[in-house]
Amino acid sequence: MKTIIKDAGKILRQGFNEFQKFSQKERGHLLSEYDIAVNNFLTGEIIRKYPDDSIFSEEGGDIKAGTGNRWIIDPIDGTSYFIFGEPFFSISAAKEHGGKIIEAHVFNPISEEYYYSDISTGISFLNDVPIHVSNTSEISDSLIAFGFSANMKAINSYYKTWAHVFDNCKKGIAWICPALSICNVARGRCDAFIDNGASFEGQAAASLILANAGGKLLNYDRSEYNPEIKGGIFFNGRLLL
Amino acid sequence: MKTIIKDAGKILRQGFNEFQKFSQKERGHLLSEYDIAVNNFLTGEIIRKYPDDSIFSEEGGDIKAGTGNRWIIDPIDGTSYFIFGEPFFSISAAKEHGGKIIEAHVFNPISEEYYYSDISTGISFLNDVPIHVSNTSEISDSLIAFGFSANMKAINSYYKTWAHVFDNCKKGIAWICPALSICNVARGRCDAFIDNGASFEGQAAASLILANAGGKLLNYDRSEYNPEIKGGIFFNGRLLL
Repeated sequence: MKTIIKDAGKILRQGFNEFQKFSQKERGHLLSEYDIAVNNFLTGEIIRKYPDDSIFSEEGGDIKAGTGNRWIIDPIDGTSYFIFGEPFFSISAAKEHGGKIIEAHVFNPISEEYYYSDISTGISFLNDVPIHVSNTSEISDSLIAFGFSANMKAINSYYKTWAHVFDNCKKGIAWICPALSICNVARGRCDAFIDNGASFEGQAAASLILANAGGKLLNYDRSEYNPEIKGGIFFNGRLLL
Repeated sequence: MKTIIKDAGKILRQGFNEFQKFSQKERGHLLSEYDIAVNNFLTGEIIRKYPDDSIFSEEGGDIKAGTGNRWIIDPIDGTSYFIFGEPFFSISAAKEHGGKIIEAHVFNPISEEYYYSDISTGISFLNDVPIHVSNTSEISDSLIAFGFSANMKAINSYYKTWAHVFDNCKKGIAWICPALSICNVARGRCDAFIDNGASFEGQAAASLILANAGGKLLNYDRSEYNPEIKGGIFFNGRLLL
Protein backbone atom coordinates (compact mmCIF):
# COMPACT_ATOMS: atom_id res chain seq x y z
CA MET A 1 0.00 0.00 0.00
CA LYS A 2 2.90 2.36 0.74
CA THR A 3 4.03 2.16 -2.89
CA ILE A 4 0.53 3.02 -4.10
CA ILE A 5 0.31 6.02 -1.77
CA LYS A 6 3.77 7.28 -2.64
CA ASP A 7 2.90 7.05 -6.33
CA ALA A 8 -0.33 8.95 -5.69
CA GLY A 9 1.83 11.53 -3.90
CA LYS A 10 3.76 12.14 -7.11
CA ILE A 11 0.51 13.14 -8.83
CA LEU A 12 -0.31 15.54 -6.00
CA ARG A 13 3.18 16.97 -5.89
CA GLN A 14 3.06 17.74 -9.60
CA GLY A 15 -0.39 19.26 -9.19
CA PHE A 16 0.74 21.44 -6.33
CA ASN A 17 3.39 23.00 -8.54
CA GLU A 18 0.86 23.86 -11.22
CA PHE A 19 -2.25 25.88 -11.19
CA GLN A 20 -5.42 23.87 -11.04
CA LYS A 21 -9.02 24.48 -11.85
CA PHE A 22 -11.55 23.90 -9.16
CA SER A 23 -15.30 23.72 -8.99
CA GLN A 24 -17.53 24.66 -6.11
CA LYS A 25 -18.98 21.44 -4.69
CA GLU A 26 -20.77 23.46 -2.06
CA ARG A 27 -20.15 26.82 -0.45
CA GLY A 28 -16.89 26.74 1.47
CA HIS A 29 -15.85 23.41 0.06
CA LEU A 30 -13.45 23.42 -2.82
CA LEU A 31 -12.99 20.43 -5.00
CA SER A 32 -9.88 20.35 -7.08
CA GLU A 33 -9.31 18.27 -10.14
CA TYR A 34 -6.54 16.57 -8.20
CA ASP A 35 -8.97 15.24 -5.62
CA ILE A 36 -10.50 13.32 -8.49
CA ALA A 37 -7.20 12.32 -10.12
CA VAL A 38 -5.79 10.96 -6.85
CA ASN A 39 -9.07 9.28 -5.99
CA ASN A 40 -9.16 7.51 -9.35
CA PHE A 41 -5.53 6.46 -9.07
CA LEU A 42 -5.93 5.05 -5.55
CA THR A 43 -9.16 3.30 -6.40
CA GLY A 44 -7.71 1.70 -9.52
CA GLU A 45 -4.59 0.49 -7.73
CA ILE A 46 -6.49 -0.91 -4.74
CA ILE A 47 -8.84 -2.81 -7.07
CA ARG A 48 -5.85 -4.20 -8.96
CA LYS A 49 -3.86 -5.19 -5.87
CA TYR A 50 -6.66 -6.09 -3.43
CA PRO A 51 -9.49 -7.26 -5.71
CA ASP A 52 -11.64 -8.64 -2.87
CA ASP A 53 -11.60 -5.44 -0.79
CA SER A 54 -14.23 -2.73 -0.70
CA ILE A 55 -13.54 1.02 -0.92
CA PHE A 56 -15.11 4.01 0.76
CA SER A 57 -13.79 7.37 -0.43
CA GLU A 58 -14.25 11.00 0.45
CA GLU A 59 -14.92 11.39 -3.27
CA GLY A 60 -17.94 9.24 -4.01
CA GLY A 61 -18.69 7.31 -0.82
CA ASP A 62 -19.01 3.53 -1.33
CA ILE A 63 -17.08 3.22 -4.57
CA LYS A 64 -16.73 -0.54 -4.60
CA ALA A 65 -18.22 -3.45 -2.66
CA GLY A 66 -16.18 -6.51 -1.72
CA THR A 67 -15.89 -9.45 0.66
CA GLY A 68 -12.47 -8.54 2.12
CA ASN A 69 -11.26 -5.56 4.12
CA ARG A 70 -12.56 -2.04 3.59
CA TRP A 71 -10.26 0.82 2.54
CA ILE A 72 -11.32 4.24 3.73
CA ILE A 73 -9.52 6.85 1.66
CA ASP A 74 -9.24 10.61 1.63
CA PRO A 75 -7.43 11.55 -1.59
CA ILE A 76 -6.58 15.03 -0.28
CA ASP A 77 -6.90 15.78 3.41
CA GLY A 78 -6.59 19.58 3.39
CA THR A 79 -7.88 20.37 -0.10
CA SER A 80 -8.19 24.07 0.69
CA TYR A 81 -4.55 24.26 1.73
CA PHE A 82 -3.58 22.47 -1.47
CA ILE A 83 -5.51 25.00 -3.54
CA PHE A 84 -4.29 28.04 -1.58
CA GLY A 85 -0.68 26.95 -2.10
CA GLU A 86 0.10 25.73 1.40
CA PRO A 87 2.11 22.48 1.55
CA PHE A 88 0.11 21.03 4.44
CA PHE A 89 -2.11 18.32 2.98
CA SER A 90 -1.97 14.56 2.85
CA ILE A 91 -3.22 11.37 1.32
CA SER A 92 -4.96 9.31 3.97
CA ALA A 93 -5.89 5.62 3.80
CA ALA A 94 -7.17 3.28 6.52
CA LYS A 95 -7.73 -0.47 6.28
CA GLU A 96 -10.77 -1.58 8.25
CA HIS A 97 -11.69 -5.13 9.28
CA GLY A 98 -14.77 -6.05 11.28
CA GLY A 99 -15.54 -2.39 11.95
CA LYS A 100 -12.05 -1.69 13.35
CA ILE A 101 -9.19 0.25 11.75
CA ILE A 102 -6.27 -2.19 11.53
CA GLU A 103 -3.75 -0.32 9.36
CA ALA A 104 -3.20 3.41 8.77
CA HIS A 105 -1.34 5.55 6.24
CA VAL A 106 -1.04 9.36 6.17
CA PHE A 107 1.43 10.90 3.71
CA ASN A 108 2.37 14.51 3.01
CA PRO A 109 3.95 14.34 -0.46
CA ILE A 110 5.63 17.76 -0.19
CA SER A 111 7.45 17.34 3.12
CA GLU A 112 7.68 13.57 2.47
CA GLU A 113 6.45 12.77 5.95
CA TYR A 114 4.92 9.29 5.99
CA TYR A 115 2.93 8.29 9.08
CA TYR A 116 2.14 4.59 9.46
CA SER A 117 0.66 2.29 12.07
CA ASP A 118 -1.04 -1.09 12.33
CA ILE A 119 -2.56 -3.17 15.12
CA SER A 120 0.02 -5.98 14.88
CA THR A 121 2.86 -3.79 16.21
CA GLY A 122 0.76 -1.29 18.16
CA ILE A 123 3.41 1.32 17.33
CA SER A 124 3.13 4.44 15.19
CA PHE A 125 5.92 5.58 12.92
CA LEU A 126 6.94 8.73 11.10
CA ASN A 127 9.29 7.80 8.29
CA ASP A 128 10.01 4.50 10.08
CA VAL A 129 10.89 6.16 13.41
CA PRO A 130 8.52 5.47 16.34
CA ILE A 131 6.58 8.52 17.54
CA HIS A 132 4.84 9.38 20.80
CA VAL A 133 2.53 12.09 22.11
CA SER A 134 3.80 14.94 24.30
CA ASN A 135 3.92 14.98 28.11
CA THR A 136 2.25 18.39 28.50
CA SER A 137 -0.32 18.32 31.29
CA GLU A 138 -1.08 22.01 31.95
CA ILE A 139 -3.26 24.07 29.62
CA SER A 140 -0.97 27.05 30.23
CA ASP A 141 1.94 25.08 28.71
CA SER A 142 -0.04 23.65 25.83
CA LEU A 143 0.06 24.11 22.07
CA ILE A 144 -3.42 23.64 20.68
CA ALA A 145 -4.66 23.25 17.12
CA PHE A 146 -8.24 24.44 16.72
CA GLY A 147 -10.37 23.09 13.91
CA PHE A 148 -13.51 25.04 13.10
CA SER A 149 -15.15 26.30 9.96
CA ALA A 150 -14.45 29.91 9.06
CA ASN A 151 -17.90 31.27 9.68
CA MET A 152 -18.63 33.64 12.50
CA LYS A 153 -21.57 31.75 13.97
CA ALA A 154 -19.47 28.59 14.13
CA ILE A 155 -16.54 30.48 15.66
CA ASN A 156 -18.72 31.98 18.38
CA SER A 157 -20.27 28.65 19.28
CA TYR A 158 -16.86 26.96 19.22
CA TYR A 159 -15.42 29.67 21.40
CA LYS A 160 -18.16 29.33 24.01
CA THR A 161 -17.32 25.63 24.33
CA TRP A 162 -13.52 26.00 24.41
CA ALA A 163 -12.88 29.43 25.94
CA HIS A 164 -10.98 27.87 28.86
CA VAL A 165 -8.50 26.36 26.39
CA PHE A 166 -8.57 29.13 23.78
CA ASP A 167 -7.81 31.86 26.31
CA ASN A 168 -5.26 30.00 28.42
CA CYS A 169 -3.14 27.81 26.16
CA LYS A 170 0.41 28.86 25.41
CA LYS A 171 -0.33 29.10 21.69
CA GLY A 172 -3.32 28.27 19.54
CA ILE A 173 -3.49 27.96 15.80
CA ALA A 174 -6.24 27.11 13.30
CA TRP A 175 -6.02 23.99 11.15
CA ILE A 176 -8.36 22.45 8.58
CA CYS A 177 -6.58 19.24 7.56
CA PRO A 178 -7.69 16.66 10.13
CA ALA A 179 -5.40 13.74 9.24
CA LEU A 180 -2.16 15.73 9.45
CA SER A 181 -3.37 17.67 12.48
CA ILE A 182 -4.08 14.46 14.40
CA CYS A 183 -0.71 13.05 13.31
CA ASN A 184 1.06 16.15 14.63
CA VAL A 185 -0.53 15.44 18.01
CA ALA A 186 0.63 11.81 17.71
CA ARG A 187 4.13 13.10 17.03
CA GLY A 188 4.07 15.44 20.04
CA ARG A 189 4.49 18.64 18.06
CA CYS A 190 1.27 19.94 19.55
CA ASP A 191 -0.80 18.70 22.47
CA ALA A 192 -4.35 18.61 21.12
CA PHE A 193 -6.43 19.06 18.01
CA ILE A 194 -10.03 20.01 18.76
CA ASP A 195 -12.22 19.79 15.69
CA ASN A 196 -15.93 20.37 15.28
CA GLY A 197 -16.35 18.89 11.82
CA ALA A 198 -13.66 16.45 10.65
CA SER A 199 -15.08 13.79 8.36
CA PHE A 200 -14.87 10.02 8.86
CA GLU A 201 -12.46 9.70 5.92
CA GLY A 202 -10.29 12.49 7.30
CA GLN A 203 -9.87 10.97 10.75
CA ALA A 204 -10.03 7.20 10.12
CA ALA A 205 -6.33 6.50 9.49
CA ALA A 206 -5.00 9.18 11.83
CA SER A 207 -7.13 7.91 14.72
CA LEU A 208 -5.17 4.63 14.83
CA ILE A 209 -1.87 6.52 14.48
CA LEU A 210 -2.75 8.69 17.47
CA ALA A 211 -4.04 5.80 19.61
CA ASN A 212 -0.87 3.77 18.96
CA ALA A 213 1.28 6.82 19.77
CA GLY A 214 -0.26 7.00 23.26
CA GLY A 215 -2.92 9.60 22.54
CA LYS A 216 -6.58 9.71 23.47
CA LEU A 217 -9.66 10.37 21.37
CA LEU A 218 -13.15 11.54 22.22
CA ASN A 219 -16.11 12.63 20.17
CA TYR A 220 -16.49 16.41 19.98
CA ASP A 221 -19.25 16.22 22.64
CA ARG A 222 -16.80 14.28 24.92
CA SER A 223 -18.63 10.97 24.49
CA GLU A 224 -16.77 7.74 23.65
CA TYR A 225 -14.88 8.09 20.38
CA ASN A 226 -16.50 6.91 17.19
CA PRO A 227 -14.71 7.92 13.97
CA GLU A 228 -17.95 7.84 12.03
CA ILE A 229 -19.18 10.83 14.02
CA LYS A 230 -17.89 14.13 12.62
CA GLY A 231 -15.28 16.01 14.59
CA GLY A 232 -13.45 14.96 17.71
CA ILE A 233 -11.04 15.77 20.51
CA PHE A 234 -7.62 14.36 19.73
CA PHE A 235 -5.08 14.87 22.48
CA ASN A 236 -2.12 13.56 24.40
CA GLY A 237 -4.30 12.06 27.14
CA ARG A 238 -2.70 14.20 29.85
CA LEU A 239 -4.32 17.62 29.38
CA LEU A 240 -7.55 18.24 31.24
CA LEU A 241 -9.55 19.73 28.37
CA MET B 1 22.44 35.94 -1.32
CA LYS B 2 20.47 32.97 -2.69
CA THR B 3 23.27 30.61 -1.64
CA ILE B 4 23.26 32.03 1.88
CA ILE B 5 19.51 31.63 2.17
CA LYS B 6 19.50 28.12 0.76
CA ASP B 7 22.22 27.14 3.23
CA ALA B 8 20.17 28.65 6.06
CA GLY B 9 17.28 26.58 4.74
CA LYS B 10 19.28 23.41 5.39
CA ILE B 11 19.54 24.34 9.07
CA LEU B 12 15.80 24.91 9.24
CA ARG B 13 14.99 21.73 7.36
CA GLN B 14 17.08 19.70 9.76
CA GLY B 15 15.45 21.45 12.71
CA PHE B 16 11.98 20.77 11.38
CA ASN B 17 12.67 17.06 11.40
CA GLU B 18 13.79 17.12 15.01
CA PHE B 19 12.14 18.19 18.17
CA GLN B 20 13.18 21.57 19.42
CA LYS B 21 13.04 23.42 22.67
CA PHE B 22 11.35 26.74 22.76
CA SER B 23 11.05 29.54 25.24
CA GLN B 24 8.15 31.90 25.70
CA LYS B 25 9.25 35.31 24.47
CA GLU B 26 5.84 36.62 25.32
CA ARG B 27 2.40 35.08 25.58
CA GLY B 28 1.30 33.78 22.20
CA HIS B 29 4.71 34.23 20.67
CA LEU B 30 6.96 31.25 20.51
CA LEU B 31 10.63 31.55 19.96
CA SER B 32 12.42 28.47 18.81
CA GLU B 33 16.11 27.84 19.09
CA TYR B 34 16.14 27.69 15.31
CA ASP B 35 15.05 31.33 15.04
CA ILE B 36 18.30 32.11 16.77
CA ALA B 37 20.42 29.59 14.85
CA VAL B 38 19.17 30.85 11.48
CA ASN B 39 19.46 34.47 12.58
CA ASN B 40 23.08 33.96 13.61
CA PHE B 41 23.92 32.11 10.42
CA LEU B 42 22.35 34.78 8.17
CA THR B 43 23.94 37.61 10.10
CA GLY B 44 27.39 36.04 10.00
CA GLU B 45 27.21 35.34 6.28
CA ILE B 46 25.92 38.82 5.41
CA ILE B 47 28.71 40.43 7.44
CA ARG B 48 31.26 38.22 5.67
CA LYS B 49 29.90 38.78 2.15
CA TYR B 50 28.60 42.37 2.42
CA PRO B 51 30.79 43.94 5.12
CA ASP B 52 29.54 47.50 4.49
CA ASP B 53 25.85 46.67 4.82
CA SER B 54 23.69 47.07 7.90
CA ILE B 55 21.30 44.45 9.25
CA PHE B 56 17.89 44.68 10.86
CA SER B 57 16.51 41.38 12.11
CA GLU B 58 13.30 40.10 13.64
CA GLU B 59 15.60 38.66 16.27
CA GLY B 60 17.38 41.61 17.82
CA GLY B 61 16.40 44.66 15.76
CA ASP B 62 19.37 46.72 14.52
CA ILE B 63 22.05 44.05 14.74
CA LYS B 64 24.72 45.86 12.77
CA ALA B 65 25.26 49.38 11.45
CA GLY B 66 26.89 50.06 8.07
CA THR B 67 27.27 52.55 5.26
CA GLY B 68 25.88 50.33 2.47
CA ASN B 69 22.48 48.77 1.93
CA ARG B 70 20.32 47.51 4.75
CA TRP B 71 19.25 43.87 5.00
CA ILE B 72 15.92 43.27 6.70
CA ILE B 73 15.71 39.64 7.72
CA ASP B 74 13.12 37.37 9.27
CA PRO B 75 14.89 34.11 10.13
CA ILE B 76 11.60 32.22 10.42
CA ASP B 77 8.44 33.72 9.03
CA GLY B 78 5.81 31.41 10.56
CA THR B 79 7.64 30.27 13.71
CA SER B 80 4.45 28.83 15.20
CA TYR B 81 3.87 26.67 12.15
CA PHE B 82 7.48 25.49 12.36
CA ILE B 83 7.02 24.51 16.00
CA PHE B 84 3.60 22.91 15.48
CA GLY B 85 5.01 20.73 12.69
CA GLU B 86 3.44 22.48 9.70
CA PRO B 87 5.79 22.90 6.70
CA PHE B 88 4.58 26.42 5.91
CA PHE B 89 7.32 28.78 7.02
CA SER B 90 10.07 30.67 5.27
CA ILE B 91 13.29 32.60 5.51
CA SER B 92 12.71 36.16 4.38
CA ALA B 93 15.34 38.75 3.43
CA ALA B 94 14.94 42.18 1.81
CA LYS B 95 17.69 44.52 0.60
CA GLU B 96 16.82 48.14 1.21
CA HIS B 97 18.49 51.20 -0.32
CA GLY B 98 17.47 54.79 0.35
CA GLY B 99 14.38 53.64 2.23
CA LYS B 100 13.16 51.45 -0.66
CA ILE B 101 13.17 47.65 -0.93
CA ILE B 102 15.27 46.85 -4.02
CA GLU B 103 15.70 43.06 -3.79
CA ALA B 104 13.58 40.38 -2.15
CA HIS B 105 14.02 36.73 -1.14
CA VAL B 106 11.43 34.41 0.45
CA PHE B 107 12.29 30.70 0.70
CA ASN B 108 10.32 27.75 2.07
CA PRO B 109 13.05 25.14 2.72
CA ILE B 110 10.60 22.22 2.97
CA SER B 111 8.68 22.71 -0.28
CA GLU B 112 11.79 24.29 -1.82
CA GLU B 113 9.79 27.20 -3.19
CA TYR B 114 12.08 30.19 -3.72
CA TYR B 115 10.43 33.55 -4.42
CA TYR B 116 12.67 36.30 -5.76
CA SER B 117 12.31 39.80 -7.16
CA ASP B 118 14.34 42.96 -7.65
CA ILE B 119 13.69 46.44 -9.01
CA SER B 120 16.02 46.08 -12.00
CA THR B 121 13.78 43.51 -13.73
CA GLY B 122 10.47 44.51 -12.14
CA ILE B 123 9.47 40.84 -12.36
CA SER B 124 8.78 38.32 -9.58
CA PHE B 125 9.82 34.71 -9.83
CA LEU B 126 8.98 31.45 -8.13
CA ASN B 127 11.83 29.00 -8.73
CA ASP B 128 12.90 31.15 -11.70
CA VAL B 129 9.45 31.15 -13.35
CA PRO B 130 7.67 34.55 -13.55
CA ILE B 131 4.53 34.78 -11.40
CA HIS B 132 1.48 37.03 -11.50
CA VAL B 133 -1.53 37.76 -9.33
CA SER B 134 -4.99 36.31 -10.08
CA ASN B 135 -7.71 37.96 -12.18
CA THR B 136 -10.49 37.44 -9.62
CA SER B 137 -12.64 40.56 -9.32
CA GLU B 138 -15.75 39.37 -7.43
CA ILE B 139 -15.71 38.69 -3.69
CA SER B 140 -18.04 35.74 -4.29
CA ASP B 141 -15.35 34.09 -6.45
CA SER B 142 -12.45 34.93 -4.17
CA LEU B 143 -10.09 32.88 -2.02
CA ILE B 144 -9.06 34.94 0.99
CA ALA B 145 -6.35 34.37 3.58
CA PHE B 146 -7.19 36.03 6.90
CA GLY B 147 -4.41 37.00 9.26
CA PHE B 148 -5.44 37.73 12.84
CA SER B 149 -4.21 36.73 16.24
CA ALA B 150 -6.05 33.86 17.90
CA ASN B 151 -7.71 35.83 20.65
CA MET B 152 -11.44 36.33 20.75
CA LYS B 153 -11.39 40.10 21.20
CA ALA B 154 -9.13 40.44 18.16
CA ILE B 155 -11.30 38.06 16.14
CA ASN B 156 -14.47 40.01 16.92
CA SER B 157 -12.91 43.33 15.99
CA TYR B 158 -11.41 41.85 12.84
CA TYR B 159 -14.75 40.34 11.89
CA LYS B 160 -16.58 43.66 12.29
CA THR B 161 -14.17 45.24 9.82
CA TRP B 162 -14.17 42.41 7.26
CA ALA B 163 -17.61 40.80 7.57
CA HIS B 164 -18.43 41.66 3.93
CA VAL B 165 -15.42 39.60 2.80
CA PHE B 166 -15.52 36.95 5.53
CA ASP B 167 -19.16 36.08 4.88
CA ASN B 168 -19.14 36.31 1.09
CA CYS B 169 -15.85 34.97 -0.21
CA LYS B 170 -15.76 31.57 -1.87
CA LYS B 171 -13.35 30.24 0.74
CA GLY B 172 -11.48 31.81 3.62
CA ILE B 173 -8.62 30.36 5.61
CA ALA B 174 -6.48 31.61 8.51
CA TRP B 175 -2.74 32.17 8.06
CA ILE B 176 -0.01 33.48 10.38
CA CYS B 177 3.09 33.52 8.18
CA PRO B 178 2.99 36.89 6.42
CA ALA B 179 5.83 36.47 3.92
CA LEU B 180 4.55 33.22 2.43
CA SER B 181 0.95 34.41 2.57
CA ILE B 182 1.78 37.53 0.57
CA CYS B 183 3.80 35.43 -1.89
CA ASN B 184 0.83 33.13 -2.43
CA VAL B 185 -1.20 36.18 -3.42
CA ALA B 186 1.65 37.20 -5.75
CA ARG B 187 1.50 33.76 -7.29
CA GLY B 188 -2.27 33.91 -7.77
CA ARG B 189 -3.06 30.94 -5.55
CA CYS B 190 -5.29 33.16 -3.46
CA ASP B 191 -6.67 36.64 -4.10
CA ALA B 192 -5.93 38.54 -0.90
CA PHE B 193 -4.21 38.33 2.44
CA ILE B 194 -5.68 40.66 5.03
CA ASP B 195 -3.53 40.90 8.12
CA ASN B 196 -3.93 43.00 11.24
CA GLY B 197 -0.48 42.49 12.70
CA ALA B 198 2.27 41.43 10.27
CA SER B 199 5.66 42.80 11.29
CA PHE B 200 7.96 44.95 9.14
CA GLU B 201 10.45 42.09 8.84
CA GLY B 202 7.68 39.69 7.85
CA GLN B 203 6.33 41.82 5.02
CA ALA B 204 9.41 43.70 3.73
CA ALA B 205 10.64 41.20 1.12
CA ALA B 206 7.22 39.88 0.17
CA SER B 207 5.89 43.39 -0.45
CA LEU B 208 8.25 43.86 -3.42
CA ILE B 209 7.43 40.36 -4.70
CA LEU B 210 3.72 41.17 -4.66
CA ALA B 211 4.12 44.63 -6.21
CA ASN B 212 6.25 43.24 -9.05
CA ALA B 213 3.72 40.43 -9.63
CA GLY B 214 1.00 43.02 -10.31
CA GLY B 215 -0.53 43.13 -6.85
CA LYS B 216 -1.57 46.06 -4.68
CA LEU B 217 -0.78 46.88 -1.06
CA LEU B 218 -2.49 49.07 1.51
CA ASN B 219 -2.03 49.58 5.20
CA TYR B 220 -4.56 47.72 7.31
CA ASP B 221 -6.53 50.97 7.75
CA ARG B 222 -6.60 51.37 3.91
CA SER B 223 -4.12 54.26 3.91
CA GLU B 224 -1.12 54.35 1.55
CA TYR B 225 1.10 51.33 2.11
CA ASN B 226 4.06 51.63 4.42
CA PRO B 227 5.80 48.35 5.32
CA GLU B 228 6.97 49.77 8.64
CA ILE B 229 3.37 49.91 9.84
CA LYS B 230 2.17 46.56 11.17
CA GLY B 231 -0.36 44.60 9.14
CA GLY B 232 -1.68 45.34 5.69
CA ILE B 233 -4.05 44.49 2.86
CA PHE B 234 -2.24 42.51 0.20
CA PHE B 235 -4.34 41.73 -2.85
CA ASN B 236 -4.55 41.26 -6.58
CA GLY B 237 -5.61 44.88 -7.17
CA ARG B 238 -8.92 43.80 -8.75
CA LEU B 239 -11.09 42.84 -5.80
CA LEU B 240 -13.12 45.62 -4.20
CA LEU B 241 -12.30 44.89 -0.58
